[in-house]
Amino acid sequence: MIGSQALIRTLVDAQVSVCFMNPGTSEMHFVHSLDSVPEMRGVLTLFEGVATGAADGYARIADKPAAVLLHLGPGLGNGLANMHNARRAHSPIVAVVGAHATFHEKYDAPLQSDIESVARTVSGWVHTSGLPRDVAEDGAEAVAAAMTAPKQIATLVLPADVSWSEGAEPVAPHPAQLAPAVPSIKVSSISRSLASQQNTVILLGGPALGERGLRAASRIAAATGVHLLAECFPARLERGAGVPNVDRVAYLAEAAQEQFDGVTRILLAGAVSPVSFFAYPGKVGDLVPEGCVVETLAGLDQDIVGALEAVARDVAAEAEPVLSAAVDTPRPTGELNVMTLAAAIAHTLPDNAIVVDEANTSGFALPAATAGAPRHSLLTLTGGAIGQGMPVAVGAAIAAPDRRVVNLESDGSALYTIQALWTQARENLDVTTILINNSSYAILRMELLRVGADNPGPRALEMLDLSKPDVDFTAIATGLGVSAVRVTTVDELVDAIERANSTPGPSLIEAIVPPIA
Amino acid sequence: MIGSQALIRTLVDAQVSVCFMNPGTSEMHFVHSLDSVPEMRGVLTLFEGVATGAADGYARIADKPAAVLLHLGPGLGNGLANMHNARRAHSPIVAVVGAHATFHEKYDAPLQSDIESVARTVSGWVHTSGLPRDVAEDGAEAVAAAMTAPKQIATLVLPADVSWSEGAEPVAPHPAQLAPAVPSIKVSSISRSLASQQNTVILLGGPALGERGLRAASRIAAATGVHLLAECFPARLERGAGVPNVDRVAYLAEAAQEQFDGVTRILLAGAVSPVSFFAYPGKVGDLVPEGCVVETLAGLDQDIVGALEAVARDVAAEAEPVLSAAVDTPRPTGELNVMTLAAAIAHTLPDNAIVVDEANTSGFALPAATAGAPRHSLLTLTGGAIGQGMPVAVGAAIAAPDRRVVNLESDGSALYTIQALWTQARENLDVTTILINNSSYAILRMELLRVGADNPGPRALEMLDLSKPDVDFTAIATGLGVSAVRVTTVDELVDAIERANSTPGPSLIEAIVPPIA
Repeated sequence: MIGSQALIRTLVDAQVSVCFMNPGTSEMHFVHSLDSVPEMRGVLTLFEGVATGAADGYARIADKPAAVLLHLGPGLGNGLANMHNARRAHSPIVAVVGAHATFHEKYDAPLQSDIESVARTVSGWVHTSGLPRDVAEDGAEAVAAAMTAPKQIATLVLPADVSWSEGAEPVAPHPAQLAPAVPSIKVSSISRSLASQQNTVILLGGPALGERGLRAASRIAAATGVHLLAECFPARLERGAGVPNVDRVAYLAEAAQEQFDGVTRILLAGAVSPVSFFAYPGKVGDLVPEGCVVETLAGLDQDIVGALEAVARDVAAEAEPVLSAAVDTPRPTGELNVMTLAAAIAHTLPDNAIVVDEANTSGFALPAATAGAPRHSLLTLTGGAIGQGMPVAVGAAIAAPDRRVVNLESDGSALYTIQALWTQARENLDVTTILINNSSYAILRMELLRVGADNPGPRALEMLDLSKPDVDFTAIATGLGVSAVRVTTVDELVDAIERANSTPGPSLIEAIVPPIA
Repeated sequence: MIGSQALIRTLVDAQVSVCFMNPGTSEMHFVHSLDSVPEMRGVLTLFEGVATGAADGYARIADKPAAVLLHLGPGLGNGLANMHNARRAHSPIVAVVGAHATFHEKYDAPLQSDIESVARTVSGWVHTSGLPRDVAEDGAEAVAAAMTAPKQIATLVLPADVSWSEGAEPVAPHPAQLAPAVPSIKVSSISRSLASQQNTVILLGGPALGERGLRAASRIAAATGVHLLAECFPARLERGAGVPNVDRVAYLAEAAQEQFDGVTRILLAGAVSPVSFFAYPGKVGDLVPEGCVVETLAGLDQDIVGALEAVARDVAAEAEPVLSAAVDTPRPTGELNVMTLAAAIAHTLPDNAIVVDEANTSGFALPAATAGAPRHSLLTLTGGAIGQGMPVAVGAAIAAPDRRVVNLESDGSALYTIQALWTQARENLDVTTILINNSSYAILRMELLRVGADNPGPRALEMLDLSKPDVDFTAIATGLGVSAVRVTTVDELVDAIERANSTPGPSLIEAIVPPIA
């Protein structure tokens, strides 16, 4: 069979059964082969950043890779920002980047560029297929590389002639290297040390923020008095009633420093040593207090959950985890602002929802408001490249068709990858987007002052202003096939969310909210 | 003064006076400094691909660089596809990519990535500023590098602390290396050879497609009988009544082979040896016929126009260029299709317009229809990365506020960088966008067959289909602040174009046109 067909068959056999794509001429045989391997679901996107972000969201929920299909170097470029976020999320993704036929490369045709160099900046594994007879092996290897701890992007560059030529056969899945256990001598040593130490924080990240990890950590905290914190921007955090609640490290370094004030020991479980998101003149970047010791219980390339459970067995055999009590948030009233917005989310959140949070400044009240809401999975902006929320919502909804996805999306961020709405409509995904329109890059208005750029003039402020003209997201969503409504009161907002959550398929609610900064 | 202020002052002194931007926290001091150097015009975009495409369009019309300001690696990624197109257009651009403070880099904070490796794939010059006292020199060097023949992208990575620290002073412009003359011995030799040769094509590209180059080439053709062709996708081609008309090499290799049929000698003047855009199974990629000699009169790093004029002096002292006669295209009637669409453009084209052509399959009738239209500059998709037209229109309009920009834009392409409309509205740019909605990636339906992927199944065809849901560009444009109207007849189209062209500011006309493929 031809290369593309053998590749797709191999991917499907390795449990990769969704491909988010924005193909071009050099990918036409891959597209053509979709009909010969019907187990592969092709999902068309209008922009590559939607495809890569969707693969990230899919991986966070499905815990396995989707494929993405991109058109040469420029397609990879368009997908790069959300691959950056996926890299930071340690999401497994198999990126297939089409390239010119091997014999065409020498001509330096217009679309020729250095694909591998760009791919390497976001991928843990990069390979260019050379021959049809090898392409299935390359695909199996890509899946294994993507799933190898700590999980990563594997990029396979696929020349057009490798794709279209005969001489390929599917191969069986390759084994991924699973995360090895933390040595028991290390676990024992840390377990012993916890009894005798106060002012210790266990900083949880990655898989530690799933239910098993959180329960083990909560038992340890209950038995020993250590404090728990979660990394600032988790790929996926289980939250809500019945799950232990763990505060996240604050985005604002000033607030994070308070969280670590007096801490003498930080124990890392799937997280990295805390640093501020940006540098600021005259402020520290390292959030570890003077004299505080940082130790690693388990790195992202180790079995983090297993290590937490082993420590819990040692120090907390009798302890129960502290679970969030269910809180029935009353229907909010009054004006629509970031506080009542958060209450509206908490009041309306369906059971077992997936919350995709790219609300930025408008979302700051959300963690407290939803700690006792129905159980949900929270997906956040892991790499700081805005434009991630709507694509991640696409992928999450495809990974979990039985769960409602609630995407809190700020206006400035939404505009990078607004094309995601069209794919939500085409695939009829159960996504409720709450588009928070404050007509500004509000976070930059805050950051401008935080970096010490005081007394900004009118020309600087204009660069942070999204009015002139105001963006009408209701019109844009309608244009992309998603039914939309604008709300200006919290009463309208609650009604609109309830209607959206109970209607199959996507909806967008444009909430006019004053900026906090 | 601080680094960013010295940098902006230096850029302005070197004639770089427009900065297309999408900044973030690490660029806040650059933004703040806009108020201290009012000669620099900051133009906000909602997506980085709009900024880089606008800089490309600006350079093609202004023949000097604009700056772009991007936010770390992900911002560069979002801008990469249109930087690829700009690289192929040899557009001079000064790209300033903000980075973490030098002392923050070691923390590998979430937005950290390998900026230089990505930048190198599209830039002729890449440098990371290290100290505030050097940043102005770096900026002057970047401008000189951008303008050095054959012109290119110069990327300056600007760490936040270099931007915000005191100790910088502006510097005077650095000289760019201008394109040297082709040695006169070579010119004479080629001039002598032209008299004795039939079946010669002079293939024109780059600066040869300006008015001076075209006039010289036309005189040579008139005197010697050589044929003229222009490269397939010129950055800028002067056309219309009063300018010599030169056919472009066809996109379809089959048609291009006919153009070169019987040619025994190709003389390159600012163009590269012709190759097919993509590879196809069993078809040649090299468009040079068997036995045909390819010689270079002048490369892109040489004075191409000077070389053509020198040859014209040698061989065509008495000859006049053959100028296109003005053709008064009657108002078209009948159904709206790609033929009547082209006639409508020709009928309505204002004097001295700039035509940005990303119509792809829907634009194939345009060259013939507009050869005798009022004089205009044609800007095409140089690098094959679709999503270039609307941003290029932004930059062209800012470079030439006295000229109407007519942007022929296909639906699939428009959706990559649709955010450009908002900047057109904010800056009140005189851009008429004719959005050709055929509800498909029509070029891929054609390419699917050309690559030999016959009898595509329903799942493959679905990946080329932009209906389900249909995109409503009128709604989207309205949402982004641009007044828009949908037309379904050629009569409505002509009326709408005339109204748009005579109304200051941007308009979008959504033309419902059946696909040709």
